[in-house]
Amino acid sequence: MSGPLPGLATDAVLKASAPVPEHFEEVKGVDYSKPESRDAKATDLIKSMKTMGFQGSSLAKACEIIDDMRTWRGKHIDELEEHDRKGEFDDDGYQKTTIFMGYTSNLISSGTRDTLRFLVQHKMVSAIVSSAGGIEEDLIKCLAPTYMGDFALPGKGLRDEGMNRIGNLIVPNDNYCKFEEWIVPILDTMLEEQNAFAKAKKADCLDSDTPFWTPSSVIDRLGKEINDESSVLYWAHKNKIPIFCPALTDGSIGDMLFFHTFKSSPQQLRIDIVQDIRKINSMSMEASRAGMLILGGGLIKHHICNACLMRNGADYAVYINTGQEFDGSDAGARPDEAVSWGKIKAEAKSVKVFADVSLVLPLIVAATFASK
Amino acid sequence: MSGPLPGLATDAVLKASAPVPEHFEEVKGVDYSKPESRDAKATDLIKSMKTMGFQGSSLAKACEIIDDMRTWRGKHIDELEEHDRKGEFDDDGYQKTTIFMGYTSNLISSGTRDTLRFLVQHKMVSAIVSSAGGIEEDLIKCLAPTYMGDFALPGKGLRDEGMNRIGNLIVPNDNYCKFEEWIVPILDTMLEEQNAFAKAKKADCLDSDTPFWTPSSVIDRLGKEINDESSVLYWAHKNKIPIFCPALTDGSIGDMLFFHTFKSSPQQLRIDIVQDIRKINSMSMEASRAGMLILGGGLIKHHICNACLMRNGADYAVYINTGQEFDGSDAGARPDEAVSWGKIKAEAKSVKVFADVSLVLPLIVAATFASK
Amino acid sequence: MSGPLPGLATDAVLKASAPVPEHFEEVKGVDYSKPESRDAKATDLIKSMKTMGFQGSSLAKACEIIDDMRTWRGKHIDELEEHDRKGEFDDDGYQKTTIFMGYTSNLISSGTRDTLRFLVQHKMVSAIVSSAGGIEEDLIKCLAPTYMGDFALPGKGLRDEGMNRIGNLIVPNDNYCKFEEWIVPILDTMLEEQNAFAKAKKADCLDSDTPFWTPSSVIDRLGKEINDESSVLYWAHKNKIPIFCPALTDGSIGDMLFFHTFKSSPQQLRIDIVQDIRKINSMSMEASRAGMLILGGGLIKHHICNACLMRNGADYAVYINTGQEFDGSDAGARPDEAVSWGKIKAEAKSVKVFADVSLVLPLIVAATFASK
Amino acid sequence: MSGPLPGLATDAVLKASAPVPEHFEEVKGVDYSKPESRDAKATDLIKSMKTMGFQGSSLAKACEIIDDMRTWRGKHIDELEEHDRKGEFDDDGYQKTTIFMGYTSNLISSGTRDTLRFLVQHKMVSAIVSSAGGIEEDLIKCLAPTYMGDFALPGKGLRDEGMNRIGNLIVPNDNYCKFEEWIVPILDTMLEEQNAFAKAKKADCLDSDTPFWTPSSVIDRLGKEINDESSVLYWAHKNKIPIFCPALTDGSIGDMLFFHTFKSSPQQLRIDIVQDIRKINSMSMEASRAGMLILGGGLIKHHICNACLMRNGADYAVYINTGQEFDGSDAGARPDEAVSWGKIKAEAKSVKVFADVSLVLPLIVAATFASK
Repeated sequence: MSGPLPGLATDAVLKASAPVPEHFEEVKGVDYSKPESRDAKATDLIKSMKTMGFQGSSLAKACEIIDDMRTWRGKHIDELEEHDRKGEFDDDGYQKTTIFMGYTSNLISSGTRDTLRFLVQHKMVSAIVSSAGGIEEDLIKCLAPTYMGDFALPGKGLRDEGMNRIGNLIVPNDNYCKFEEWIVPILDTMLEEQNAFAKAKKADCLDSDTPFWTPSSVIDRLGKEINDESSVLYWAHKNKIPIFCPALTDGSIGDMLFFHTFKSSPQQLRIDIVQDIRKINSMSMEASRAGMLILGGGLIKHHICNACLMRNGADYAVYINTGQEFDGSDAGARPDEAVSWGKIKAEAKSVKVFADVSLVLPLIVAATFASK
Repeated sequence: MSGPLPGLATDAVLKASAPVPEHFEEVKGVDYSKPESRDAKATDLIKSMKTMGFQGSSLAKACEIIDDMRTWRGKHIDELEEHDRKGEFDDDGYQKTTIFMGYTSNLISSGTRDTLRFLVQHKMVSAIVSSAGGIEEDLIKCLAPTYMGDFALPGKGLRDEGMNRIGNLIVPNDNYCKFEEWIVPILDTMLEEQNAFAKAKKADCLDSDTPFWTPSSVIDRLGKEINDESSVLYWAHKNKIPIFCPALTDGSIGDMLFFHTFKSSPQQLRIDIVQDIRKINSMSMEASRAGMLILGGGLIKHHICNACLMRNGADYAVYINTGQEFDGSDAGARPDEAVSWGKIKAEAKSVKVFADVSLVLPLIVAATFASK
Repeated sequence: MSGPLPGLATDAVLKASAPVPEHFEEVKGVDYSKPESRDAKATDLIKSMKTMGFQGSSLAKACEIIDDMRTWRGKHIDELEEHDRKGEFDDDGYQKTTIFMGYTSNLISSGTRDTLRFLVQHKMVSAIVSSAGGIEEDLIKCLAPTYMGDFALPGKGLRDEGMNRIGNLIVPNDNYCKFEEWIVPILDTMLEEQNAFAKAKKADCLDSDTPFWTPSSVIDRLGKEINDESSVLYWAHKNKIPIFCPALTDGSIGDMLFFHTFKSSPQQLRIDIVQDIRKINSMSMEASRAGMLILGGGLIKHHICNACLMRNGADYAVYINTGQEFDGSDAGARPDEAVSWGKIKAEAKSVKVFADVSLVLPLIVAATFASK
Repeated sequence: MSGPLPGLATDAVLKASAPVPEHFEEVKGVDYSKPESRDAKATDLIKSMKTMGFQGSSLAKACEIIDDMRTWRGKHIDELEEHDRKGEFDDDGYQKTTIFMGYTSNLISSGTRDTLRFLVQHKMVSAIVSSAGGIEEDLIKCLAPTYMGDFALPGKGLRDEGMNRIGNLIVPNDNYCKFEEWIVPILDTMLEEQNAFAKAKKADCLDSDTPFWTPSSVIDRLGKEINDESSVLYWAHKNKIPIFCPALTDGSIGDMLFFHTFKSSPQQLRIDIVQDIRKINSMSMEASRAGMLILGGGLIKHHICNACLMRNGADYAVYINTGQEFDGSDAGARPDEAVSWGKIKAEAKSVKVFADVSLVLPLIVAATFASK
């Protein structure tokens, strides 16, 4: 068993490496000798996570890209030809990034809603894509609260009590009864308005210039009606930030619309999705630069990516979700998959943070949008 | 360091257990002494996985529930009052389960499409909910193939070649050009038909009895037009199995509709989502029993669950996806969360299999729907 | 809003693709027109999953690689120089692949144990790496059964009953009491044997030629003592397949050794881990070809990879686990990370299947090792 | 299609809920009207995440439990009988929690190493369990740096350059050559010391009072030898915090020990794992209270849990990792599974945060251990 060192193994284990390229960045973490490491502020934390590795450095990169997208400025509007005066401009008249933010329903159910509202209230995003729950839960929270629960509460007991579970949250079913009381008169009025333009335009009532109901126009109306400063929809209405939700019927609003068809028959509200795809795609095409801030997966991710294909790719992309790519789902696809489709530009700055949004969004926003 | 055995530790480690209840089932795996263990058939594999534990036993349970839901029979139609003659019946006139199957887009892109088509072709499901890609990719595959690729192919090189990546699959962009050529004349005709009923009904053209375009009616029409036996949509049209897709504009069909608005202006196709929520909810309410077969997460999962709330819960539920509950997403919610909402009955049989669908669906179908 | 088709968008959406390379393989699934698609056999299922995409095709690739590694044959022993007559040979004297199989503890707790035992019983693998639970649970199952439970059973009630939960399995705590009764006399004898060689060799008792206890020699002894054909360890002993488990103390055996130190004091069993690293690394260096079959993550994965570095990389690698790479864990690292380390050869055939092992191992083995 | 509202559906959708219990806590997020929400400090962020829901609230709970475990104080040492004077005491002589911290290798490779070192340097933890990489990478980083890389760098090119990838980090292979140079003389000396006690004690050299090498004593020695304030091992040695690593051979140290067996033959270093299981279990038994801080999964998690069984359960438990329970792995098991085993007390405070550690540890430590 004695003998010389085994050459096969030592050659493999002790293989010399090429010189380390100069641009290589050393892995380093928090410097605890500095006073700012104590009860650290968001920007200091993020700064020290840049060379942390793994998702720590991805988080820092996400903040960097967000700061890039929100602070980019192009030409002044006066420098532009008439037909180029489109997209977003800051208050001083300079071009800025059109930021598409997507979020899933659960983020409105959770306390991240306050963070999302902050962004909308201060016009920090340009357009929103949400799933249906992301619309109605925002309204319902103006009528009654959602509560903390536990992931392990058994479903049968909860149903008996009329308590609906969303992860570790609880929504009493009464909240939906209150929602029904609130929305039915609004649906009645919306139907009247539909009838009015149908009567006025007759066979032409389906033309593109007709104010036909679409998910985004319904959402804008509900934001106006709720008239509550805690609401994302309220501020979106106020600040003219469109909220897109092609599958608006996939939730409590759908339940209410379903019930309404019985009440209104033979008349019926109609909500058209073609007009909205025109609207979001046009926003993408008109943007000077386009940024994506994707919080979650599924439709809200794909819809923003698809809109950005219309401009041959977004310039900035931050994905935050827990999806994995191995099942070929769009939810789990990395930004580089979107590059292959022309949905993100090859030279764009992009990152995916593998995390539950509720875990990182407060920190991200504290270090970027709310850093001052 | 010597001394008596430490009592604290031995009491904890060697704590006696209560007698094992008689109904406890022993964990056991494949019995390799039996000849049927060699190159085992699907039903034999599944049988031996029942007491495997972990997802092995979840898979076996999924097969059990699927067999329960597909073989359940209720009363004969002649035994029923006129107003109870609704829901699904088998060829002999007995009530059977209304099975709602949901699948995400990627399953149509992958080879599981053939399995989904098999189920639709043989009327093994009653209604479908899909995301937009699950509609258009089925049609596009009739025009040109999708290819095997690799998860790690860099996006920039692919975009340069016009090759779009979906996980480890590749779709040449030409396929979408072919799709555009195919669909434009159909959209033209659909617009003409819309104009015809608008002209005929005038201000009443929005009433509930108007054949207004909805996602499901558009999809049915496309299934008719494609006229190809390899297509899921073709067989759904043929077998009158509705396919719901509220966000039909969220993909290539949306791109085509967007382009079409320029061509058709000032006229415009309109696709209404209110009528479809009425349709799917009505199917749920009329079902003698309702079963859910959810392949993937996101909208397709929530939409079926929500429809089943209209009947106070599904009777059978099988979820197969890779979502996790810790982020509070609906995608990752376990069946028991749906019980709290009344979307699955407390006494229903339900299971979630944590797996990429492509990994298990062929085996599941071989052992159930295609076992004979 | 009318006007020409938007060029920016159409150029992006309808970008032409380069010609499809001839070697591209079309995505295809199960052909249900063939009779073998009914209650399909494992090999037929796997064949049709080759072009399924996502993890379906990864599973098929895993089977292909397993078949390659287990059927590879090199030179006949008579063609080899004396010093090259090492590694594994088949019964006819031809070189074959040294297959390192790693599995985590839970696989022995579940019904996959029968599948693992089948492989060991029939000498289909050459060496094993396991975590401590994978050793003791195999022995304990010879003394008393493990039962089916549920992932959601509350811990407090179970502890009160002395029922230990492993995922959806239940192990009565009495099983560990039985294990203690069984193992204590064996530990006594092992200590006597240790004393005997210490006495015989005195100060030289630590030399490399001393039969000092190591995890693998303890495991071999326990396999001999259990003398039960349902046991993995029994067959490993019988077939001289070493089982490595450097952290052998990390579980119930560790508890028993801990207790034993009080009983035996001032004498004490000693288990050395240096000898075993020499043993496994030597097996890797001597192998004509090396294959890895990694079932799970953590130590059992890293230990086999590390051993294969000693030969500058494995020739075949199949990983099956649920780990993700985003957290930089070795558990979640893809085979390509091991290539960078020289643990898998750049030209090796490798694949990772993202799945719970219990879900796929029975099918994989049915289609490969147990296909005939 | 008209008619009354469908009773089945309205009853299910508008089911009244039981009154909301008074103790229910409302979901709320960050209050952006407060100045402390701007560039928020760690403690303010965590405070506002308490009612965030999902992993946001889990993170806040983790901080709460950590603060509980690190600030708990029991009796003064003078109040205790002689035989009860064991476990940990603070500088003023009051009992405090024995905190077991476990971390996986990758955390040392990443920038979280600085955070781990901070905890050890300031005696904020009592014992450590690590995997082998968590030992050697700490030493190697004192010899040469690790660099930032990318998850997608291809393995073949890296191997050609001698660059090893760990997630998105790069370790030049030269670092391991430097490690070899550094460690070989130390191993030589350790062997001499082994020989010395063997010679002195002869046949009794294996007795429990013999200073036989164990993983923890080897690690302590290496910590002394490295003599570098950036090192976790250095401070652990300095502060007498034992580091357990039963599988110490599973990594580069194992490679070096393997090579050393050739050099030293017929003599051989022996590293015993029995002594260390006695040591860690004794610490658990002697603790006044026991807390677990588990960073990652696999052996490091199980080993600490198992040690805490010796005292019939830990009093505090914080798990942070990305493991999932569906595959029955110990890595993914929730704290409640450990309750069933008696590894965590039923009344203990426990939480699992589903996250990559690098994403949340800096924030957690800033808000707890480093809050002042």
